[in-house]
Amino acid sequence: MSADHVPATPVPEGRDPLADLVAGIRPISAVALADAAAHQGRLTKPAGALGRLEALGCQLCAIAGSVPAPVPGAPAVAVFAGDHGVLAEGVTPWPQEVTAQMVANFCSGGAAINVLARQAGATVTVVDVGVASPLPAHPMLRDRKVRAGTANLRREPAMTADEARRSVLIGAETAASLVAGGADLLVGGDMGIGNTTPSAAIISAVTGRPPAEITGRGTGIDDATLAHKASVIVGALERAGGPTDPIELLAQVGGLEIGALAGFYLGAAAAGVPAVVDGVIALAAACLAVGLAPDTVGYLVAGHRSSEPAATAALAWLGLVPLIDLGLRLGEGSGAALAVPIVQSAAAIMAEMATFDSAGVTEKEA
Amino acid sequence: MSADHVPATPVPEGRDPLADLVAGIRPISAVALADAAAHQGRLTKPAGALGRLEALGCQLCAIAGSVPAPVPGAPAVAVFAGDHGVLAEGVTPWPQEVTAQMVANFCSGGAAINVLARQAGATVTVVDVGVASPLPAHPMLRDRKVRAGTANLRREPAMTADEARRSVLIGAETAASLVAGGADLLVGGDMGIGNTTPSAAIISAVTGRPPAEITGRGTGIDDATLAHKASVIVGALERAGGPTDPIELLAQVGGLEIGALAGFYLGAAAAGVPAVVDGVIALAAACLAVGLAPDTVGYLVAGHRSSEPAATAALAWLGLVPLIDLGLRLGEGSGAALAVPIVQSAAAIMAEMATFDSAGVTEKEA
Repeated sequence: MSADHVPATPVPEGRDPLADLVAGIRPISAVALADAAAHQGRLTKPAGALGRLEALGCQLCAIAGSVPAPVPGAPAVAVFAGDHGVLAEGVTPWPQEVTAQMVANFCSGGAAINVLARQAGATVTVVDVGVASPLPAHPMLRDRKVRAGTANLRREPAMTADEARRSVLIGAETAASLVAGGADLLVGGDMGIGNTTPSAAIISAVTGRPPAEITGRGTGIDDATLAHKASVIVGALERAGGPTDPIELLAQVGGLEIGALAGFYLGAAAAGVPAVVDGVIALAAACLAVGLAPDTVGYLVAGHRSSEPAATAALAWLGLVPLIDLGLRLGEGSGAALAVPIVQSAAAIMAEMATFDSAGVTEKEA
Repeated sequence: MSADHVPATPVPEGRDPLADLVAGIRPISAVALADAAAHQGRLTKPAGALGRLEALGCQLCAIAGSVPAPVPGAPAVAVFAGDHGVLAEGVTPWPQEVTAQMVANFCSGGAAINVLARQAGATVTVVDVGVASPLPAHPMLRDRKVRAGTANLRREPAMTADEARRSVLIGAETAASLVAGGADLLVGGDMGIGNTTPSAAIISAVTGRPPAEITGRGTGIDDATLAHKASVIVGALERAGGPTDPIELLAQVGGLEIGALAGFYLGAAAAGVPAVVDGVIALAAACLAVGLAPDTVGYLVAGHRSSEPAATAALAWLGLVPLIDLGLRLGEGSGAALAVPIVQSAAAIMAEMATFDSAGVTEKEA
C-alpha cells in the first residue's frame, strides 16, 4: 500500500458527504450570461460570425460569474482506471491486463492522452479506483482503489451502493485537489477494458433508448460480439430491475471509474470550474452527475462526438453539442483534451477582442 | 510609399515566374504515407481509435517526407486584404472603409484572428494587395498593393490578367518569406468587404454549381439581398463567358486577396510546408491554386467548414474534409487558426506515442 493510499473517503459522523457535495453546486450565473451576450455583440465581427465559439464564450463567463471570464491557462486531466467483471461474458477481445498495462503507459507518458495533454498544456493525473491487479506506486498515480474490479454486472450488482458512493466521492476529491493545485479547466478520462458495456447500460437506463440501438463496437468487435454485447446489457438491466436512482444504477450496472468521473464533474461544478467531457464513458458519468445534481450540466462542455452510438444518445439527453467530431473512440480523455484549445480560444475571444467603439470600426448599415 | 513597398514582383527577362512556381511543386511522398500508416498501426491504441487524426498525421508525414514528421511549432498566419468594385452592386450592407479599418484592427492586435493566432502560438502578417485607400505603414503590414481595389466584376473584368498573376506571385512570395523566417505551418486569411461575391463566382465556375445554390449570406444579408447577390454572380459569369483558365477566371470575377491566397497555397506546396485552409474565400483561392498545380492539394488541410454554402461545394470539389464545424463565417483565417492545435496534435501523436512493443502492452486477440 503506497503512502498515497486512501482506502475510503472519511465520512464524518452523521454527515452525508455526497449530499453535501450536491448541495454545494450552484447554477451558473444568468446575469453574467446576459452580460456576456451583450459584450459579444460589441466585438469587431459580424454578429454570430464566430458561430458556436460565441455561446461557449458566454457559458464560460456564466461559469466564472464575470465578463470576461479568465482564459483557462492551467488545464488538468485526470484519468480514472478500473476493471470490469463483465469481461467474463466475452464482450471484448482485449484482455483485462491491458488496463494495468495502459496505466503504466500513462505513467511513462507514452499514451495518446499524454501526447494530447502535453499539446494542450495540461497535467495528467491517473487515479486507480478499481484496477483488478495491484499497481506499482508512481508519482503520477493516486491509489484510491475501492475494490479490485467490479463484479459481473450481467449476473449480480457490479458493486455495492456504498462502493458506488465512495467512487463518486473519490472523483469529487480529485477535482477539488486539482483545483486547489491551480487547475482552472478539468478534463476527465477513463481506462478500463470492457467499460463501454457498463456505459451503454447506464445510458440506456437514463435515456430509455434500447441497448440494441445504442450499443457500440467499443475498441473494435465484430457483428456477432456486438449483438451479444447488447444482449448482455439487456440481461443486466432486466436483472437490476430498472433502477432510477443514479447511485443505485451505478452500483447495479456501472463501473468504478464511471462513478469517479461522475464525482469529478460534480466536483468541478462545486468548485465553479468548467469540465470538458470526453466520449461515451465520460458521458455515462455525466448523465449520473446530472441525475444527482442537475445544475452540474451548466459547467460541462462536450469535447467531442465519440463514434459510439450511446455517446450521441447521452449528448442529446444532456442537451450538449460537442465541439469536435473527428470519429475518435479511444477514451482516456483524448477527445476532451483535443478540444481544450477551442475552449481556451472561446474565452480569449471574449477577453481580448476589440469592440467596434474601441477599434473605430464602422458597423454595418441597419 | 513605405520602404517595404514592392510594386510588382520582378520578372526576369524571358522567364515566367508563375510557371516556375508551379513547376517547383512536387507530389507529397507516397512512400512516407505508407510508412506512416504502418507506424500508426503500432501505436498503443486500437486501430482507428483516433479517427481522422490518424489520416491527418499520415498526411503530415507525406508532406514532410519522413516518419514521424516534425511537430509544427512555428505556425504563421498571413491575412491578405483587398477591396471590391462589386460593392457598387449593393451586395453587402458593410461599407468599403471597413476593410482598411479592420487592417488597422489587425495591426493593433484586436481582431479575432489576432486572438486565435496568439492562442495557436502563431505570428500574424497582414498584406495589402488591393485595399482601396492608402494605409499607414506598420511593422505587421506589408504593402504589396497591386491596385486600389478591383473593378466592378458585374460590369467588367475585376482586374487584368497581369494584375491577377501579380497577386498570385505576391502570395507565393509571402509564403516563401514566412517559411524562410522559420514558419513550419501556414495559415492564410482574408479581409475584404464584399469578397464572398467573387469567391462564390469562382467556386461556381470551378465546380459547375449554379450561383443560386451556393451563394451565401456572407457577413449577414437578408433574403432580397441574397437573391440579388446571386443574380450579380450569374450576370458576371455570363459577361465573362465562362473562363476555365484559373488566372483568367481570377482576373474576370476574382479579387486581389483571393489571388494572393491562391499563390500562398502554391508557395506553401513549393516549400513543402502544410497550409491550413480557412473558409469560403480561402477555398475559392485553393480551387484556383489546385487548378494551376493539382499536386498542391496534398499540402492543404481544411481547417473548418464555413457556414457559406459555396464553402461546402469547394470542399467537395477539392476532396477535403474540414477538421472543425462550428458555424464560423468570419474569414480572416479564423477557422483555420482554430484548427492549428488539432494539426499539431495529429503530428505529435505520430511523433510521441509509444508502440505496443515499446510500452509492453498486449494487443487484442485476433
